[in-house]
Amino acid sequence: MTAVTSPPRTDAPAARPVSFEVLRSFGQSHPAGPAADATRARLGRLTTAHGVVETPQFMPVGTNATVKALDPDDLREAGATMILANTYHLALRPGHERIARLGGLHRFMAWDRGILTDSGGYQVVSLGDRLTIDDDGVTFRSHLDGSPQRFTPAYSIAVQEALGADVAVCFDQPVPPHASSRAKVSEAMTRTHRWAERCLEAHQRPDQALFGIIQGGLEPDLRAASTDFIRALPFDGLCIGGLAGDETGVQRRAALDIVVGRLADDPRPRYLMGLGSPLDLLDAVDAGLDLFDSVLPARVARNGTLWVPGGRLNLRNAGFLDDPRPVLQDCPCRLCRTFSRAYLAHLFRANELLAYRLATCHNLTFTLDFMARIRSALAAGTFPRLRRELQAQAAVTDAAGEPL
Amino acid sequence: MTAVTSPPRTDAPAARPVSFEVLRSFGQSHPAGPAADATRARLGRLTTAHGVVETPQFMPVGTNATVKALDPDDLREAGATMILANTYHLALRPGHERIARLGGLHRFMAWDRGILTDSGGYQVVSLGDRLTIDDDGVTFRSHLDGSPQRFTPAYSIAVQEALGADVAVCFDQPVPPHASSRAKVSEAMTRTHRWAERCLEAHQRPDQALFGIIQGGLEPDLRAASTDFIRALPFDGLCIGGLAGDETGVQRRAALDIVVGRLADDPRPRYLMGLGSPLDLLDAVDAGLDLFDSVLPARVARNGTLWVPGGRLNLRNAGFLDDPRPVLQDCPCRLCRTFSRAYLAHLFRANELLAYRLATCHNLTFTLDFMARIRSALAAGTFPRLRRELQAQAAVTDAAGEPL
Repeated sequence: MTAVTSPPRTDAPAARPVSFEVLRSFGQSHPAGPAADATRARLGRLTTAHGVVETPQFMPVGTNATVKALDPDDLREAGATMILANTYHLALRPGHERIARLGGLHRFMAWDRGILTDSGGYQVVSLGDRLTIDDDGVTFRSHLDGSPQRFTPAYSIAVQEALGADVAVCFDQPVPPHASSRAKVSEAMTRTHRWAERCLEAHQRPDQALFGIIQGGLEPDLRAASTDFIRALPFDGLCIGGLAGDETGVQRRAALDIVVGRLADDPRPRYLMGLGSPLDLLDAVDAGLDLFDSVLPARVARNGTLWVPGGRLNLRNAGFLDDPRPVLQDCPCRLCRTFSRAYLAHLFRANELLAYRLATCHNLTFTLDFMARIRSALAAGTFPRLRRELQAQAAVTDAAGEPL
Repeated sequence: MTAVTSPPRTDAPAARPVSFEVLRSFGQSHPAGPAADATRARLGRLTTAHGVVETPQFMPVGTNATVKALDPDDLREAGATMILANTYHLALRPGHERIARLGGLHRFMAWDRGILTDSGGYQVVSLGDRLTIDDDGVTFRSHLDGSPQRFTPAYSIAVQEALGADVAVCFDQPVPPHASSRAKVSEAMTRTHRWAERCLEAHQRPDQALFGIIQGGLEPDLRAASTDFIRALPFDGLCIGGLAGDETGVQRRAALDIVVGRLADDPRPRYLMGLGSPLDLLDAVDAGLDLFDSVLPARVARNGTLWVPGGRLNLRNAGFLDDPRPVLQDCPCRLCRTFSRAYLAHLFRANELLAYRLATCHNLTFTLDFMARIRSALAAGTFPRLRRELQAQAAVTDAAGEPL
């Protein structure tokens, strides 16, 4: 844990900062079942200096060094073992050098489990004003105060080393997958590859893992080329970027199948950036992915949308004001074990702060429990059956046109 | 506890719903000390169906059936044994009949300790639009949706019986103490007396205490007359209303001395409505008051003002962004035992929801610990010394013109 407060600067070779073990892999088909049971899902274990992360796993997002409305006890109670923090936001405010002086991100936010920082690439492109991209980096203006800023691969790595997360990721140039021309996807991919090499060169902190990012949009040959390029580099893990955006589920799955097919038995963890809805997570696990993050469960919670098996409840509907039941019977979260739907509906109508915390506790507990259920099914060899059941349940929900 | 879900409607005489015991009273002067140690402070114990409330005691305010940003575990951890909820707000939203159907206020908000509801008198006058006051009640429009509303003594009692708090209070007509003419204070006092009798007649719930309210503004003879009128009625406790407003501390103390002097050895609890700053609380305890409530500690917390001995910290000051110390060393609250001033200052600047919860935990813990310190000094016979020390500390703070 000394690494958090004072990064060791030694030339001695360090052990891998993050180890990943595939506990069970089903390869192209389920060993004991029919062809319909084919899956690439795998069960794994990521070990960092801040504990063990069982995979497939979902990482809640703590943009500003806090998962909105929750404290670390809430996160632990929800079952989080690793969270994501945003390099772009923390570099702008309160500043990565300040966080380093205060002992690093773990100490700053009092979170003693795993942290992964993104590279800022996505936020620079989506939040920065007056953006110009060149082959060395991105110049933009802060969305907070309009101040001029520049992110380069080396700068993103320096920020992430100062923050001191367990896992850093490469600075990349994401593009909206569906709305982008082939030329644009290709240009961004080539730049991402060059920046991946620069990030590897810049990265020094031996107690921090570095993941590369595969791009290539929805173009099969570009996805394949990017997979081949990135997997050949000595990264500790592989991110799949440029998805979980404006593409359809079928388009996403096609891109994932290309990537995972070419990764074959590569033993490194595979992280699909930005995916958060339960059925999307199920499909991506089926495609062979290990790690996920998204603001989605927490964001919809703050809007009053509570996730339950097969659907969702909109607590802003007046009908819930008289409903004495918990949001979800037998759910272990702080909301469901203590309060009624009626109380939560009242809190939302009164704009009371407690509503946001309770709803977020529920949706994150629900998402993390959903992943735990997937892992149990993988361990028991029953994942194909679980997948069929959940997809059938969702089909019924869709046909009825009702959220429940 | 059945009372909360289904009020017993029996004609059999019930035991007093609330008992109060004065454990130690110093009368007009401290028994073993010099004249300068004179105090009317007293140590007591209020017992309700929801537990024991050691007095002098401060009650956090849960306007909308939630102390803003906190959940019941947070409140228990801060040391709260009784909270106040606002009859006016809950009658308008979500509605007292709805709360009654859901099992009463304790169950609704999952708070198993004491609750006192105010009468709505103060909020009707301060929040209601297009107000008209007659001898039977107040007609106004809701501040939420402009709907026409009318509060009468009997209606306020009916609302409070539906909510099912441990202690209800009479519907009164408060007036700003300093800014009101003698004629206005007198008229409001007379009306408050008539309404007190109507509240006593209307109140039926045998498991709920009813407190009367003494008015009379800053007019010595009116305060005296109101004290004599209200104390002659069979209330379970006595509130002092119409203070903690625009009067000076000296004016308030003069009014309190009149009231407490005339109450003499009256064994019922004395509750000064609306007072919340630590030094004001100290002075009111010294004057012989037992119970207090205020939104102040929580409201200033949400604005970034954190209370510490002898002063306050404004966490919005940039200097705190680099301060690794806790807000208050050795403070047992969730904020101080876990996070730095730097982290809290960052959360406030990023408008993160967690800031409001952590700051509120601290200021309520601080206030409730301050009351516990007063009680310990009363039990040990050292209250006069504590009062001198705290007043001297405050005088230094004032002279330096610095909050710390």
